[in-house]
Amino acid sequence: MQSVFEQAYAEGRDSLSERELYEMLAALGLDVPKHELIPDGNYLAGRIHDIENEYPERVVLKIASPDIHHKTETGGVAVVDNRADAIAGAFDAIIAGAGKAMPEARIDGALLLEHVEIEHELLVSIIDDPTFGHMLTVGRGGTLAEVFKDIAMRPAPVEKPHIEAMLKSLKTYPLLQGYRGAKEADIGRIVDSIATISSLARTNKRNLKGLNPLRFRFDIAELEINPLAVTKDGRVLPLDGILRFCEAKERTHESVTPDVTHLDKLFHPKTIALVGASDKAEKMGGSILKNLIHGSIRKQGGAGAAIFPVNPKHDELMGLKACKSLSDIPEPIDLAVLAIPAEFTPPVVAECARAKVKMAVVISGGFGEMGEEGRKMEAEMRDTARKAGMRLIGPNCMGVYFEPTNFSTFFLSSEKTVIPRGDVNNYTVLSQSGAVGVQLIQLARNVGVRSVVSYGNMIDVDVADLMAYFEGDEGTDVIGLYVEGLTNGARFIAAAKKMTKPVIIMKAGRTRAGSAATVSHTGSIAGDYDVAKAVFSATGLVEAPTLQDLADYVKAFAFLSARVPKGRRIGVVSNAGGLGVLAADATAGTCLEMARFSRSTVEKVTAEARHYVTTGNPVDLGPGVTDKEFLRAVAHILDDGNVDALVALPGIQPYPMRPDHVVDGIIELNSRCSVPMVVAITPAEERFGLFDRLEAARVPHYDTPERAVRALAAYLAYHARGRE
Amino acid sequence: MQSVFEQAYAEGRDSLSERELYEMLAALGLDVPKHELIPDGNYLAGRIHDIENEYPERVVLKIASPDIHHKTETGGVAVVDNRADAIAGAFDAIIAGAGKAMPEARIDGALLLEHVEIEHELLVSIIDDPTFGHMLTVGRGGTLAEVFKDIAMRPAPVEKPHIEAMLKSLKTYPLLQGYRGAKEADIGRIVDSIATISSLARTNKRNLKGLNPLRFRFDIAELEINPLAVTKDGRVLPLDGILRFCEAKERTHESVTPDVTHLDKLFHPKTIALVGASDKAEKMGGSILKNLIHGSIRKQGGAGAAIFPVNPKHDELMGLKACKSLSDIPEPIDLAVLAIPAEFTPPVVAECARAKVKMAVVISGGFGEMGEEGRKMEAEMRDTARKAGMRLIGPNCMGVYFEPTNFSTFFLSSEKTVIPRGDVNNYTVLSQSGAVGVQLIQLARNVGVRSVVSYGNMIDVDVADLMAYFEGDEGTDVIGLYVEGLTNGARFIAAAKKMTKPVIIMKAGRTRAGSAATVSHTGSIAGDYDVAKAVFSATGLVEAPTLQDLADYVKAFAFLSARVPKGRRIGVVSNAGGLGVLAADATAGTCLEMARFSRSTVEKVTAEARHYVTTGNPVDLGPGVTDKEFLRAVAHILDDGNVDALVALPGIQPYPMRPDHVVDGIIELNSRCSVPMVVAITPAEERFGLFDRLEAARVPHYDTPERAVRALAAYLAYHARGRE
Repeated sequence: MQSVFEQAYAEGRDSLSERELYEMLAALGLDVPKHELIPDGNYLAGRIHDIENEYPERVVLKIASPDIHHKTETGGVAVVDNRADAIAGAFDAIIAGAGKAMPEARIDGALLLEHVEIEHELLVSIIDDPTFGHMLTVGRGGTLAEVFKDIAMRPAPVEKPHIEAMLKSLKTYPLLQGYRGAKEADIGRIVDSIATISSLARTNKRNLKGLNPLRFRFDIAELEINPLAVTKDGRVLPLDGILRFCEAKERTHESVTPDVTHLDKLFHPKTIALVGASDKAEKMGGSILKNLIHGSIRKQGGAGAAIFPVNPKHDELMGLKACKSLSDIPEPIDLAVLAIPAEFTPPVVAECARAKVKMAVVISGGFGEMGEEGRKMEAEMRDTARKAGMRLIGPNCMGVYFEPTNFSTFFLSSEKTVIPRGDVNNYTVLSQSGAVGVQLIQLARNVGVRSVVSYGNMIDVDVADLMAYFEGDEGTDVIGLYVEGLTNGARFIAAAKKMTKPVIIMKAGRTRAGSAATVSHTGSIAGDYDVAKAVFSATGLVEAPTLQDLADYVKAFAFLSARVPKGRRIGVVSNAGGLGVLAADATAGTCLEMARFSRSTVEKVTAEARHYVTTGNPVDLGPGVTDKEFLRAVAHILDDGNVDALVALPGIQPYPMRPDHVVDGIIELNSRCSVPMVVAITPAEERFGLFDRLEAARVPHYDTPERAVRALAAYLAYHARGRE
Repeated sequence: MQSVFEQAYAEGRDSLSERELYEMLAALGLDVPKHELIPDGNYLAGRIHDIENEYPERVVLKIASPDIHHKTETGGVAVVDNRADAIAGAFDAIIAGAGKAMPEARIDGALLLEHVEIEHELLVSIIDDPTFGHMLTVGRGGTLAEVFKDIAMRPAPVEKPHIEAMLKSLKTYPLLQGYRGAKEADIGRIVDSIATISSLARTNKRNLKGLNPLRFRFDIAELEINPLAVTKDGRVLPLDGILRFCEAKERTHESVTPDVTHLDKLFHPKTIALVGASDKAEKMGGSILKNLIHGSIRKQGGAGAAIFPVNPKHDELMGLKACKSLSDIPEPIDLAVLAIPAEFTPPVVAECARAKVKMAVVISGGFGEMGEEGRKMEAEMRDTARKAGMRLIGPNCMGVYFEPTNFSTFFLSSEKTVIPRGDVNNYTVLSQSGAVGVQLIQLARNVGVRSVVSYGNMIDVDVADLMAYFEGDEGTDVIGLYVEGLTNGARFIAAAKKMTKPVIIMKAGRTRAGSAATVSHTGSIAGDYDVAKAVFSATGLVEAPTLQDLADYVKAFAFLSARVPKGRRIGVVSNAGGLGVLAADATAGTCLEMARFSRSTVEKVTAEARHYVTTGNPVDLGPGVTDKEFLRAVAHILDDGNVDALVALPGIQPYPMRPDHVVDGIIELNSRCSVPMVVAITPAEERFGLFDRLEAARVPHYDTPERAVRALAAYLAYHARGRE
């Protein structure tokens, strides 16, 4: 197979001809259409009788040129009867037409193929995403692929069961099943063919060369088979395709294994140096110093971390003895926080390395995000750190808040920055943006926060390292992850796959990067955000479409973490029909199903009801229901084995409903059972403190039935995936 | 044309044959394929030489049977060369095949058609929605129409400019423009053909018969042309279709004109009778009485409405003299509120009619929503009211809250029901569900409420009447509308079209009703909710996907109502990059564009910035920026003529940002300019009262940048529609 690439490469090409592509696919074991290259009229004349014998009734002629990609559009394809005159005429027309349309193009002749009757057209491609590497796309093919955008995508290579799942997720899957008189396709055979194509993808391991299926020298830049046709007689055939290749190279010098070395020093430092410390709280170096001292005093006492402000112009800062430089610090330094202008930072990073600092946090912005000069400084700092075995977080970040040690490197005013704390603090936020990290914890105001890490430009410690660290952190039950740009995609995938804790992720910066130009359909169907979504889904992360959703989902995961649902069937109870209707509507498009109650549940719930009541699901007990009756109905439904989770919607405004009683009753029921329960109470300006009371007891409350249902759906879907 | 229907009807059919459909369309002036019916082999033998002369090289034969709809799937279609033997063979095969596949079917022979080469396949249909009547659908046709679901829909008939807009909204519109080598279609010709088909729809006027284009006797039950083909030689031809018809009848006895008669008595009654009054606040009749008295005392003093509790068992209730019955009330009764069990209600409605009550509010539930018996009681009450000229609202509702008179018929506890009031109370909520109405006002807690009407089962006063009333109500600037089921669609459309005020609508109960069976593709592509969405969009209502969105949008409309935006270009300013990125992402899929600032704006904003700043759009001023600098940057951007609206995102946690100063500064800037501005401040548990302060000054605040942008998008899109 390698020789195909060698030859194309020797000719200065970076793509295979269609014939070469067929050869390569045939070598992998795929069925390909019968074909041969007709270089010129003389050859054709000599072969014509054999062709009439060997090929079926109709044949296809396609222009053979390394320079012409979209053959149909340029008149380079003809379908003719398998007769000498017809074939010769079509051959001459195609060659002449191509010469006219693209005079510069190299013409190798025309490719002759058996004509097949097509029943289904699929698209299969491998693209090389700059972040995540090879991604396999499967979709509806044909010339309209880009119009219909009916695709599924996963990091390649992909195992057969997942290929089948990708096919099943297509809107056009029913066609393959024989919809509207179409012939049913052999799904197994399609899956086999796609798996073979997928095997051309690089595996996401460090030593790419060793595992490169193209044997060392070359690597796929872009491969698209469109159509991968299912013929009327049931064959699965690649009919047209593009393969661009490049010399195989290591895509990154970074390890693809997450590295947690020294990360514990971020959260449990014994000695902290703050370079750029100030006595003015309104300055970055002053506010950080204030927060460091505040944490140290409040929780750590004399046994806490030793803080060394570094500032050559001061002897003392905020009551602490200041050092002129890092070398003046008498103890080994666990953590150095750098809050100095960008241009002064690289030399200080070098100083940190010399002083054997274990972990450096570079707060300052003004690096890679500003342009080339900044990227150079970043590369310098990265090299310095790597050589010294020092870890570095940032630059352009806020560093760390860690609840157990009350430790914070934030430059924010602690008076203005509310970090939720509770009896249980099991929520960790990893956010590329500090401001968004703060927003995320405040949006879920009753969810106790264990840690916030603002990780910025990720020149050393990256999101994968942090995920790996918190996977091992006992106090963290759920991670909220905000990313803008990702760099080492392979490491990200490796870390994500290993997570046994729920990670709720939101990706911003969704506009399409004008990255590498592609000639395939896939490139114009799927943007960077689609690729990222495919990676999140394939690695088991829970994607939240907006910040509000992320906070809503996190609340469900943080509070319900001990309650593993058995299925996806929910019960909905309200004292107002409209609220139940909203909840039922919100299940559309989610994994949730409305539970069918057992007969005895219906009977018991009916007995609790007043005059007019709907005892289907949602249950509407009517505005006359009392809190006691409402709670008894909730209890009956929680007891029903057909109900995997419950949405309680007690409108509190009718007279018979005593708000505090209904809330306390729900808390009581919740403590006695393990069925996940969420609540939405009409938001009476929070004047009764009901929501905080519910959430102090770890019952998630949402402002609307719809938000309650969506969050519950995310939770149940996460657990359902584990079972399926 | 009528004769086609007459004949089919005489034969006991409710659908036209394909040939009859061609005849009808040809009579309307459409180009149809050359065709003739071949009843049997003898006829064919006699005609065959003429056929060879008159038809092109290839012809189509289709089974002609009123009982076979999906011809392709049952092998009833053949394409053959125009040669005697080929045609005869195909004819015999089709007839024999149909007899075998459907032995019961009536076979009229086969339809012979010229074969045309198809370039594009469209779908055009008219369905008869039970609520909204004839709806025109335009979409991508062919056998895959249902798989791709690429359609646009509007209430029919549709004018040509709207037909063109429908075509342009299709995902597959680029195909018609010549995408990927397809031949460009003549859009004008397609629009003309669709307009002709659309003209078959009933117009939504009362006297349906007079305007029925099928001339009095028949009406379209379902019409679908699929494909309406654009041929390779540029003709626009209906190639296959279905038409079912019915006898024309008045679809409703209801007027299609909204009726506001006596509605003022709902809001400004001079005399109120409460039937079912009680002295126990926990009873419905007690809580309503309490609320009526509360309103009367607090605002109306001695000049307010006279309240007459009606209860035969009491002489006095809550300090008011009770009457035994309505006839005991000494004054003319403007408004009667009925809070008695369902079974006692119809006789009391009759009593109201006798007592010449102008407006009755039936609070009780237990009617149509419970089944047939309830619907009968509803019909009885409706007839009683209509005959007496009395208006009736409900049943199964909470009635009315009206701020100017502090008048409320709600049975809710006023202590537990927070209805937002402010200096300006310009928000009116019309909600089929009382509980959802309460939720809607509480979700927008700083938006002053003018009125809430809970209208329930709508047996007389319906949502159209209420829209018409509040269109004329000076104090209402924006209407929030929650609907579950709609009944008189024509009246709804008439009212919606006349609204000059923004109506933000949310439709619940979105699961598909198993309504009239259809044989067309359209029926399985578009559900009831799709039809409703098409109506809302065509009539200029603003649709909100969720309750939270409705409340968010309403806030923008209520606060910004005097600020008419000039365009859709927004500026975004933050002191944290992540917040700006979120705002920019949220513009995707909306009408919004990111403004391009003028050079002088960029220069001035840069001058305000500290070290590291992005002066593109979004503007990131960095965490070091002071409130004064931030405000000056906002001022520069508001001054830029290229900016139609502004999103301000001042993260308040950094030290240099004084929260109260930045909020007061925004309020000040907002008061000095007319550019709409929305704000999202990281939600620091609302501890600084910043959001209420902003909103007291009518600057909309949202918890996340995304929600701010979405609400602004709804506002700008509403105004953009007026301009385009």
